[in-house]
Amino acid sequence: MVVEIIAVGTEILLGNIVNTNAQYLAQKCAALGLSMYHQTVVGDNRERLNEAISKARSRSDIIILSGGLGPTEDDITRDVCAGAFGRELKINESVKKTIYDFFAARGDVKVADSNLRQAMVPEGAIVLDNANGTAPGLIIEADDCKAILLPGPPNELIPMFEKQVYPYLNSLGEETIYSRVVKICGFSESLAEEMILDIIDGQTNPTVATYAKTGEVHIRVTARTGSEEQAESLISPVVDKLYARFGNNIYTTDENECLEQVVVKLLKRHGLTISTAESCTGGMVASTLINVSGASDVIKEAYVTYCDEAKHKLVGVSTDTLEEFSAVSRETAAEMAEGCAKSAESNAAVSVTGVAGPGPDDDKPAGLVYIGLYLDGKTEVKECHFRGNREKVRHGAVISALDGIRKMIIERYE
Amino acid sequence: MVVEIIAVGTEILLGNIVNTNAQYLAQKCAALGLSMYHQTVVGDNRERLNEAISKARSRSDIIILSGGLGPTEDDITRDVCAGAFGRELKINESVKKTIYDFFAARGDVKVADSNLRQAMVPEGAIVLDNANGTAPGLIIEADDCKAILLPGPPNELIPMFEKQVYPYLNSLGEETIYSRVVKICGFSESLAEEMILDIIDGQTNPTVATYAKTGEVHIRVTARTGSEEQAESLISPVVDKLYARFGNNIYTTDENECLEQVVVKLLKRHGLTISTAESCTGGMVASTLINVSGASDVIKEAYVTYCDEAKHKLVGVSTDTLEEFSAVSRETAAEMAEGCAKSAESNAAVSVTGVAGPGPDDDKPAGLVYIGLYLDGKTEVKECHFRGNREKVRHGAVISALDGIRKMIIERYE
Repeated sequence: MVVEIIAVGTEILLGNIVNTNAQYLAQKCAALGLSMYHQTVVGDNRERLNEAISKARSRSDIIILSGGLGPTEDDITRDVCAGAFGRELKINESVKKTIYDFFAARGDVKVADSNLRQAMVPEGAIVLDNANGTAPGLIIEADDCKAILLPGPPNELIPMFEKQVYPYLNSLGEETIYSRVVKICGFSESLAEEMILDIIDGQTNPTVATYAKTGEVHIRVTARTGSEEQAESLISPVVDKLYARFGNNIYTTDENECLEQVVVKLLKRHGLTISTAESCTGGMVASTLINVSGASDVIKEAYVTYCDEAKHKLVGVSTDTLEEFSAVSRETAAEMAEGCAKSAESNAAVSVTGVAGPGPDDDKPAGLVYIGLYLDGKTEVKECHFRGNREKVRHGAVISALDGIRKMIIERYE
Repeated sequence: MVVEIIAVGTEILLGNIVNTNAQYLAQKCAALGLSMYHQTVVGDNRERLNEAISKARSRSDIIILSGGLGPTEDDITRDVCAGAFGRELKINESVKKTIYDFFAARGDVKVADSNLRQAMVPEGAIVLDNANGTAPGLIIEADDCKAILLPGPPNELIPMFEKQVYPYLNSLGEETIYSRVVKICGFSESLAEEMILDIIDGQTNPTVATYAKTGEVHIRVTARTGSEEQAESLISPVVDKLYARFGNNIYTTDENECLEQVVVKLLKRHGLTISTAESCTGGMVASTLINVSGASDVIKEAYVTYCDEAKHKLVGVSTDTLEEFSAVSRETAAEMAEGCAKSAESNAAVSVTGVAGPGPDDDKPAGLVYIGLYLDGKTEVKECHFRGNREKVRHGAVISALDGIRKMIIERYE
């Protein structure tokens, strides 16, 4: 089946917002095994939207429209799409009640007439509940083509898609799509792909594909089958093969779990605490960990030791080490990590010292970063060479530091 | 003049990458006063790309194509576009030399044959230099329509657009577009707009428009005139009016300057140093400052004081204060900032303590954040209420903290 996306909104044409909905929807459609050949953006203009819908209908089985379902006059997607599919719009009492309830819950006494436009539903359309706004989604089904209308704000579109549209689309095919993601750190996409080229080439169901993320590679294993059990029996052996190749470089196979969550979870499981001493990352490792809800169980304090004096004063790096080996060195990284754990009285510690760039620092090239890892008496140092601008170097260092301590905990305690 | 964008790349249709080029190009075209009614994405498929170009040519004066200029077989934009405009492709010796030089500079001895495909130029086309890659950009001019072909990677596309395409597009109109941006913090877009509605409505040349950025609002003043001097005489009085309304809430009118750069610049100018004591932001304020190249002159060390004990131990918040008022309080924020400056021996200090969420903490609602600001003996505390998820609350706190210390320095020393 062929699907295409039409995003409706003058704010996209003006560049005020980036069309992240298109990427989200494209990823999901690809995971569902749907083919996509076109994406279009049109403004809040009836004639042009109508033309875009006609064109899409002539070449695709499913059209997903995002945006233009709001309450104001320039929100035209509902009207134009109903017109294009020859459906009349009628007030839907159930939707009307939901809108009244939504405003009542917010404490608003009065509902604007314009909001009632959102209760207009094309004849025969399926209504999709919106848990985070007043615009319901809609599915208009015709023999040749289906139109799925979704609200523009991502916090409304995404949950609506996950809960209602994904199952709907999955039910359209004779076979159903199931997939599992395998997330790894420390490999470039091309290297990861090379390491499993035989698996990729040898598989047709499930398929295996790699996706580059910042500092990470995600490998998606996707099966088309009649049931979840069957899918599991197809996917599991392939995931096992990937584990055989990548071992504990795989940090999760959970769709919704990120690296820092895994690190916090591991620390909690083993009753460990962590602290950080950061130079060029300036607090990014700590703040990434603290972005995990519940991190307060495992991280109590951390240090940004940007200058040499701070490295000595806060985490006890010896002045001899700083003089002999300089701040950006294996030796300093090790002492930073050890001293950090001592100062913070934590079981684990991560230190980062390097040259973020843009230029080199003394004789050290931009991108050279030493990461110190300390865990219950044992210290390791990783030497990394990152490419790219200051932001990329620092981001690479954060991922590398988190992944390093993750592996150290696993090797020691699991 | 009407312009439209065609992005070429199967990786966009699969959702592997988000089409940020489209947003960038749309913003620039809007700033140039060009009208945009369509954006399209097609994959690496000759037939569909050809159809998209024909359609675009029938309705627009300018087509900007991004992507598909690489060296491999599936990079088809150059070929298909030349075909659509009836131009033959020929090896361009100057481009060929540039490609050889590029590889030589990287230390590669051999240039792959495939890379020479990038030296093929449609007859009569303008060649755009690529400072960051081997794919030159191209402009094909026909009477009815101009096609501008740009490489897909943003780090190649953006500099090429800034230096070569923007002046080209600007020269096409009889009048030229000049604009200035006014960047402010601490206002929502709707509030900022309300405050200058009379200016917006009263202006036709220059025009005044607001753009919401995370935690900031940018106001763009755009004039169409024959010369830069004329533009300056139109824009300056409007910028003065904006200064009269927003005062020192305006942190810069420099296109390329961000908030943290302004803070580092101000600190340097007055010979000041800064430190931070962060709880819910966990090091984000420090790491944002340290992302500014040259920040080492003004920030030496900083503290992540996530638990109560760390607030006492590292920055000397009294245990009485923590007990009586709790960690998330005006009093704790003030003592954190003061103690931070003392511990770090800095002139200025910023503290952040709050509830990042998702849930409330004791009786404190998610989104409540106290920001302590200390400068040479004087302390202020800002109480903030942020909306959104954990990440948004923390990001809002960072902007608010940086903007707070900026204003304090200005009021005291400028």
